[in-house]
Amino acid sequence: MPLIVQKYGGTSVGSVERIMAVAKKVILAKSQGNDIVVVVSAMSGETNRLVSLAKEISDPPNAREFDVLLSTGEQVTISLLSMAIAAQGCPACSYTGGQVRILTDNVHNKARIVDIDDQKIHGDLSQGKVVVVAGFQGVDDNGNITTLGRGGSDTTAVALAAALKADECQIYTDVDGVYTTDPRVVSDARRLEQICFEEMLEMASLGSKVLQIRAVEFASKYNVPLRVLSSFEDGPGTLITIENKKMEKALISGIAFSRDEAKLTLLGVEDRPGIAAHILAPISEANVEVDMIIQNKGVDNTTDFTFTVHRNDYLKALDVLNELTKDLGVREVIGDERIVKISLVGVGMRSHAGIASTMFKALADEGINIQMISTSEIKISVVVNEKYLELGVRTLHSVFGLEEA
Amino acid sequence: MPLIVQKYGGTSVGSVERIMAVAKKVILAKSQGNDIVVVVSAMSGETNRLVSLAKEISDPPNAREFDVLLSTGEQVTISLLSMAIAAQGCPACSYTGGQVRILTDNVHNKARIVDIDDQKIHGDLSQGKVVVVAGFQGVDDNGNITTLGRGGSDTTAVALAAALKADECQIYTDVDGVYTTDPRVVSDARRLEQICFEEMLEMASLGSKVLQIRAVEFASKYNVPLRVLSSFEDGPGTLITIENKKMEKALISGIAFSRDEAKLTLLGVEDRPGIAAHILAPISEANVEVDMIIQNKGVDNTTDFTFTVHRNDYLKALDVLNELTKDLGVREVIGDERIVKISLVGVGMRSHAGIASTMFKALADEGINIQMISTSEIKISVVVNEKYLELGVRTLHSVFGLEEA
Repeated sequence: MPLIVQKYGGTSVGSVERIMAVAKKVILAKSQGNDIVVVVSAMSGETNRLVSLAKEISDPPNAREFDVLLSTGEQVTISLLSMAIAAQGCPACSYTGGQVRILTDNVHNKARIVDIDDQKIHGDLSQGKVVVVAGFQGVDDNGNITTLGRGGSDTTAVALAAALKADECQIYTDVDGVYTTDPRVVSDARRLEQICFEEMLEMASLGSKVLQIRAVEFASKYNVPLRVLSSFEDGPGTLITIENKKMEKALISGIAFSRDEAKLTLLGVEDRPGIAAHILAPISEANVEVDMIIQNKGVDNTTDFTFTVHRNDYLKALDVLNELTKDLGVREVIGDERIVKISLVGVGMRSHAGIASTMFKALADEGINIQMISTSEIKISVVVNEKYLELGVRTLHSVFGLEEA
Repeated sequence: MPLIVQKYGGTSVGSVERIMAVAKKVILAKSQGNDIVVVVSAMSGETNRLVSLAKEISDPPNAREFDVLLSTGEQVTISLLSMAIAAQGCPACSYTGGQVRILTDNVHNKARIVDIDDQKIHGDLSQGKVVVVAGFQGVDDNGNITTLGRGGSDTTAVALAAALKADECQIYTDVDGVYTTDPRVVSDARRLEQICFEEMLEMASLGSKVLQIRAVEFASKYNVPLRVLSSFEDGPGTLITIENKKMEKALISGIAFSRDEAKLTLLGVEDRPGIAAHILAPISEANVEVDMIIQNKGVDNTTDFTFTVHRNDYLKALDVLNELTKDLGVREVIGDERIVKISLVGVGMRSHAGIASTMFKALADEGINIQMISTSEIKISVVVNEKYLELGVRTLHSVFGLEEA
């Protein structure tokens, strides 16, 4: 019998009514001849409520105890969902992370899954039960409760699917799949039937919020077919798997973009080995993550050094650089927090030349100036002024024919 | 180093402020040279909130899943209290029932404690930590979460004290000890310094709500000194221990009473062996608990049969009896739901004759008619019209000199 792991997030189980609706979906999937394991998050709002309670007492709260607290959120959901499934006539059994020994390291609040004991779950499944497991939580070697950090329920679902050798891991969300780009920007954006892990990773890291990157990485590593579906509408969603023959037809799978970018440039930096590290080390120490980096040899013996950061970190990074210029004899530090990043993603790029020039020409035809370029094997990203975001995304979506299946 | 188990109920941990106050009390007790294990209930209101959620989904909810749900209430409290203690500079560590393997039978919603693993707790104590344990919950042999039923946190505290061989188990409540009688009825009621287990059991079963009967029974069985104190005021409270020399001085320890009584009488029942069982079996089948029972041989070959029940069960019991009279040829069924029970409790009775007659004479002197009498080795109970409750309790309190230490 096929085994499916389903995961429902906080919004999908945010009220008694929604929990009843999820129970119906679960029972339907089971009645279609599948074994079902369900992973759930805390009801929406519950984790925030618990965080507030803790912070009233101590901020930051003790890390071990914070995990004991937060893990109650999912425990409430697993019990309510199991009750709802049982009340509709289907046997069900809930487990906390500790009860099925989702073994993690002991890094409280952002633990990583090491192992899962699948004995109890297989036992219940073979008795015809639906098994409901708390997402986001585990236990360390000493039985201390740990949590995986926000969004960790996706990871729990994928890890369980891998451990149980499930046929598919279905992630139910508030969108009905992965789109060629954000439908709010391009009205004829199209839901993808399939996308491969690598593309999904690029899409996720470039701003598509459908799935947690960690969960996609985990699915890719253990080759667990992932499907993103809507909790609220019926439909096939988008299947995320390893690259296959059928998918090679598509040159480009999607266009991702990120509005939260800012750029910093050091003008007239002395051009000597180690200068990049010298500039970026204090940025990293300030806990600012750097995304794109460009270094251009300038006139005389100096170079211009540019990088992008999250817009929230812009002022912090600017402070660090202004401090740094005293040592480096930089001519000038300039910055721009009105930029965005637009990225073409597609495994088809590997075997097709000319995609970059098609992209650059299309943007140039619309008068869009490209400020920075970065490429990988399956992605081309450009940085442009934020006013060109919608125009740029729509233009590329059309030029590469993404509205057509 | 003396080891003290402290238990705080839902009202005592009902808000962040109160949890902070409990943390202070715990740290003070530790600073006075004690090892401290704390048992807590769910924050007041939380259990009711969870029960409502469950009943919206399914009523009655699945028993196993109901325990998974309810046990989150105490888990929230243990984490918050441990954070609060840690935030005030004292190392603390929380445990759910499962984590310290409070092993119970598998009767969900009203499980009984079988065993406790004291290794982790002793380990933490020896490292100078305060240990905070969730009351009311445990796990069965298969790792399923169980709960002990309402009030079970007292039982958890006593069971832990027994397992850890604690020097004292302190139950913090909203009253500052056990009184000779209810101070709302007798203004010069006096807090008892000490009372023995047997007396406390009688007081509790006769309506004194200070402690759960199960917890007192457990403490008595394992000879764990119990102390009842106020969470909100300082004071020595009342110590409940095995009977000792000092305590024999007191003839009477207290006067308990219950307003929730009702009485039913069958007149002219055929007097033959087995008639009592014949009457009481259907009452028991209707889930009505019978308290006092009296049978008086009447004229001719009949008998009058009287018993008391909880006032809430009066009409149900009356229905059963009216049905029964058809079979038994009873002359008449009469009832009275305007009665109360007043009880003298004291181990001193064992060695002193004449207490009953003193009691009866004192009531007669006030014109109080006694309707029923029941006695045990350390208790005399009388049933009187409810209008005499306050007068009767005050009279007896005074006659037996309970206002004096």
